[in-house]
Amino acid sequence: MPRRAFLGTAIAWGAGSVAASARGGEPLAARLPDAMTTPGGADLPYGQPSVQERKVVRHEHQDAGFSVWRSPLENQRGIITPSGLHFAVHHSGVPDIAESGHALMIHGLVTQALRFDLERLKRYPMVSRIHFLECAGNSAANALSPFALNQTLGELAGEVSCSEWTGVPLSYLLQEAGVKDSARWVVAEGADAASHTRSLPLDALLKDAMVALYQNGERLRPSQGYPMRLFMPGWEGNVNVKWLHRLEVTDAPAYSKDESGLYTQALADGRIERFAFPMDVKSVITHPSGLQTLPDPKGFFEIAGLAWSGHGRIARVDVSVDGGASWVTAKLHDPVLDRAFTRFTLPWRWQGRKATLMSRATDEHGRVQPLRSEWKRRYAMHSFNHYNAVQSWRVGTDGRVENAYV
Amino acid sequence: MPRRAFLGTAIAWGAGSVAASARGGEPLAARLPDAMTTPGGADLPYGQPSVQERKVVRHEHQDAGFSVWRSPLENQRGIITPSGLHFAVHHSGVPDIAESGHALMIHGLVTQALRFDLERLKRYPMVSRIHFLECAGNSAANALSPFALNQTLGELAGEVSCSEWTGVPLSYLLQEAGVKDSARWVVAEGADAASHTRSLPLDALLKDAMVALYQNGERLRPSQGYPMRLFMPGWEGNVNVKWLHRLEVTDAPAYSKDESGLYTQALADGRIERFAFPMDVKSVITHPSGLQTLPDPKGFFEIAGLAWSGHGRIARVDVSVDGGASWVTAKLHDPVLDRAFTRFTLPWRWQGRKATLMSRATDEHGRVQPLRSEWKRRYAMHSFNHYNAVQSWRVGTDGRVENAYV
Repeated sequence: MPRRAFLGTAIAWGAGSVAASARGGEPLAARLPDAMTTPGGADLPYGQPSVQERKVVRHEHQDAGFSVWRSPLENQRGIITPSGLHFAVHHSGVPDIAESGHALMIHGLVTQALRFDLERLKRYPMVSRIHFLECAGNSAANALSPFALNQTLGELAGEVSCSEWTGVPLSYLLQEAGVKDSARWVVAEGADAASHTRSLPLDALLKDAMVALYQNGERLRPSQGYPMRLFMPGWEGNVNVKWLHRLEVTDAPAYSKDESGLYTQALADGRIERFAFPMDVKSVITHPSGLQTLPDPKGFFEIAGLAWSGHGRIARVDVSVDGGASWVTAKLHDPVLDRAFTRFTLPWRWQGRKATLMSRATDEHGRVQPLRSEWKRRYAMHSFNHYNAVQSWRVGTDGRVENAYV
Repeated sequence: MPRRAFLGTAIAWGAGSVAASARGGEPLAARLPDAMTTPGGADLPYGQPSVQERKVVRHEHQDAGFSVWRSPLENQRGIITPSGLHFAVHHSGVPDIAESGHALMIHGLVTQALRFDLERLKRYPMVSRIHFLECAGNSAANALSPFALNQTLGELAGEVSCSEWTGVPLSYLLQEAGVKDSARWVVAEGADAASHTRSLPLDALLKDAMVALYQNGERLRPSQGYPMRLFMPGWEGNVNVKWLHRLEVTDAPAYSKDESGLYTQALADGRIERFAFPMDVKSVITHPSGLQTLPDPKGFFEIAGLAWSGHGRIARVDVSVDGGASWVTAKLHDPVLDRAFTRFTLPWRWQGRKATLMSRATDEHGRVQPLRSEWKRRYAMHSFNHYNAVQSWRVGTDGRVENAYV
């Protein structure tokens, strides 16, 4: 792709000129808009989106008894996912738990088992961090389907979101309980009907984990684990145990149902990959993306997308519009935060011809997104977790955008 | 306040020990919580807060025909205000405007008057920025009331919030229209029944303004100006014209009703302060704050608060627990962003005695919050806009926290 394909002047954007351009107080429109002649309506104590945006919601997908709610990322701008649109996976529905009936217990290989109710926990020092959260199984359809499904970005890869999480560093609570020398793991259990249980290495938890109480400035939503969840930045979603009520400090993993089965990956060479916690470097172009239609080709269109890595900061995103034959480095937008969504953009002048758009992220450790074919070579045919291959969008001469395998 | 008042060990926090602390898989509670024995409920396409948090809402205050919705800042953690709790002031209700019937017109001292509908505007490059937004009249009660009103922080100072705003830099649109040499001001008009109108200096707009389309990752809420608003980081709320539909480029201000009256400040020496746009450096302690009660004095309590400045970054926040006799520098939490909420915290061991808590912010330009008495000396008796004096909280021996004038 020649560099000049991205150059141009603002004039070429071609905003329509106004018929009556008289200077002064005269309205440019033939008459005042209705909203200017009638008092507006009431506001709500807890505000809601415009009714005009009623189609911007999550769609439920039932999968092997789970509820999967994918975020419509194709509608997101910026790095914060609104809490109402944050993806969620429920193994046994959403429990409605009152603060007063809930507590976190820490026991096992500790000097003193401890119980923390909400009143007590809220006295502790809290930290806030902006981090993405991604389901291990995000983009499973791209991993499994032999042909590229013609779906929206949210349907294909909407099990990832980014929020500001606030909570108590778990190290404070573990240190207070007094972790014994033989301790190596912590088994976290949720208070839902699935008793969702995951084993996590103690050292990593002491460094990074929080007991999250708040998301985007308010208490966690029920579907995010109200009254509290475990939060491990960059790690696969299901280890961030929701409705957290028990942490058992142990010398070995529990090999719980989910960690022995669903969240274990089969590799192509027959080996099994277990406890592979961090989500790898990944990116998606959000604008334009699946099922969208490009407006007329006269003028520029800003390609925009999101990149993230469970290992650290995004260092660079390259974009191709010719199916990977050539790449141009996109602009990264501040703030570029550790293990958070990072925005990238690139101006593009669509010529009305067929095009294939791709984005390839690199993180600060030099990890690069693989192509789909490379990813498939590493994992067994039926594996679908930790899919982080390059997402490609094919643009037709009619401007329609479709998922594509390249 | 001696430095040792802030020191201690985690053990002193005193989490309750569990009666049955047996190691192993046995549950520590007498029986499983209900949520673990019954499948959870359904999730919603657009998620909502827990019903357990139903009291955490904005409260409407009718004031001279305006609706004022104050954010319950005493419940916020982190720097992002959830959009449902963002403060709002409506001069004539909330219009329900469809994208299809709305456009932004730019006219006046330009080479070519232009009209931008939503479809066209969404093609332009967008930027995202995390910024606070504060009403000029925030904290008016503290400015005007001869005695300290015994209210919550949200009631006293909740006309400020912080969001990630995304939109098109206004400079792109103005440059496309072609600003003439004689242009100095831009008159912005909203499409609400109040025709809310403000004049803003052109140079500042070219540097910093955006036409905001998104807030916290989704399209603006109606009460924040859907389908679009003007956004000027750090400037008083009302110039961020909501339901924006017209920008007239001029050589002089319009001296509109609101800018000539309500949003003009009378000084103590008889002069008038007009077009004083940036909101000055300010801070509030959110935990503990008005009408809250401190838990038992055994152990630590984390003092936490928010600081912001319309001129730039927060450089430092000092906290006093003895009514200003002595001060300790609080910890600032990352990210410390330009013209955004910044979190500060300080551990405190409450001894069960009377205390008066205060926070005093300093920004990167050396601007420091005044005491209330200093602020009152500068402004006329009846002035209330741009109140940024130190907020004091008196703690009683029963742990109750009340607004106080110091």
